[in-house]
Amino acid sequence: MEKILAYFKNDAFAAHNNIRLVEVAPGTATATMEITANHLNSLGTVQGGAIFTLADLAFAAASNAHGTVAVALNVSINFLKAVGVGTLYANATENSINPKVATYTVRVTNEKDELIATFEGLAYRKKDKAPFA
Amino acid sequence: MEKILAYFKNDAFAAHNNIRLVEVAPGTATATMEITANHLNSLGTVQGGAIFTLADLAFAAASNAHGTVAVALNVSINFLKAVGVGTLYANATENSINPKVATYTVRVTNEKDELIATFEGLAYRKKDKAPFA
Amino acid sequence: MEKILAYFKNDAFAAHNNIRLVEVAPGTATATMEITANHLNSLGTVQGGAIFTLADLAFAAASNAHGTVAVALNVSINFLKAVGVGTLYANATENSINPKVATYTVRVTNEKDELIATFEGLAYRKKDKAPFA
Amino acid sequence: MEKILAYFKNDAFAAHNNIRLVEVAPGTATATMEITANHLNSLGTVQGGAIFTLADLAFAAASNAHGTVAVALNVSINFLKAVGVGTLYANATENSINPKVATYTVRVTNEKDELIATFEGLAYRKKDKAPFA
Repeated sequence: MEKILAYFKNDAFAAHNNIRLVEVAPGTATATMEITANHLNSLGTVQGGAIFTLADLAFAAASNAHGTVAVALNVSINFLKAVGVGTLYANATENSINPKVATYTVRVTNEKDELIATFEGLAYRKKDKAPFA
Repeated sequence: MEKILAYFKNDAFAAHNNIRLVEVAPGTATATMEITANHLNSLGTVQGGAIFTLADLAFAAASNAHGTVAVALNVSINFLKAVGVGTLYANATENSINPKVATYTVRVTNEKDELIATFEGLAYRKKDKAPFA
Repeated sequence: MEKILAYFKNDAFAAHNNIRLVEVAPGTATATMEITANHLNSLGTVQGGAIFTLADLAFAAASNAHGTVAVALNVSINFLKAVGVGTLYANATENSINPKVATYTVRVTNEKDELIATFEGLAYRKKDKAPFA
Repeated sequence: MEKILAYFKNDAFAAHNNIRLVEVAPGTATATMEITANHLNSLGTVQGGAIFTLADLAFAAASNAHGTVAVALNVSINFLKAVGVGTLYANATENSINPKVATYTVRVTNEKDELIATFEGLAYRKKDKAPFA
């Protein structure tokens, strides 16, 4: 796990936005984001792109943790609740996997365990070994 | 248009990520992002969250430009081509609108007009006047 | 439950396609479809539309079972495994609900409990009482 | 085109539901459905599954018309307007194609050219020749 966590620390966009991978194993991952003023939209709530990016990091980690490169093809995200302060958590779990394609559900919650967004990701699995593997 | 552009300059997450709204009118908008090292993932290509955020800003602007607050309920995004340098453009157009719900297609392209991603957004239209209106 | 089951027996499209609601309660429902030759596509496997319709009936029942009319706004479906014979099951569970919008996950499985498709539905909740309520 | 049209006449689920492919070429297709009592849900409007199936046939035809087998991985559909009588049309156009994956937009309209639904399909392209090719 150390090598994968280190690898995802090199995700510059996540790092630039204060998003951190905290746990990862084949098919599952958790990421967190402590909300700052940089995450807000013009209405003062967390921008949809910030929520997406948090969930996307968990999705990328869970799907790449099998040791081969997986790239996102499609994501469908439902935004359920606006939030302006605190910490958000993204938990990715795997719904299906075959040699070509794998699918994941990521739940984004806050400290009160309220559901903020649900994210469904479909990844294409390449033959290439992941850089950390 | 000046007031709406000014309003979306207050989108801190977009600004923090070098994403800028350049045109907006009721039901349509264009945003751009000059790619920097901050937008890249561990593979060295633009992170999915950065592409999503670019498209999302165009979607938010196009849907709010009618003068009432519109909030995202669902987005489905297809990632079509990886890209690592240059400038990305997001163009939002409106597919449907009624008093409760409106839908938009956002096409994300690069300088060669290659299609990088397609984004379908569904927004819920509140009764509240938009802050800039 | 009897009244809701009776009501959904009047779903002519589901009935015409041998799809039956078997259980329903507020926020949850199960539907089944015994595969026949009428469900197949040109490749001899169950057509995507048949799988969608099965899942959609469970989604409609779960979302309307609160007693007010709910209508589908968006569905995202992942097709995970082709299937040609046997019985399919669709189980809907509720992820979120507020006065305007509710979201559901429907899992479509076969007799071996293999996952055939996952379906995410977003419904708009009207104020109108459901006809069976 | 004759061979492809003939091939899709063997889509039993489409035929059983009065859905007909009328035009097809690589990357594009049109299907129609004359609404009958069999297409309606308990509210008396066309069931979401019927609309999906109509769009799906156009998607399948457009994506397979390149001559190799393409199978649906993900579809996101927005339901925009309820309809109870008349004829529906589904027009599929191709947004992107590479050796592995292709994406399509299908617009479902009625006789007044009102937009009933928009459907985004992502297909995986197998190496196998299509049966009609």
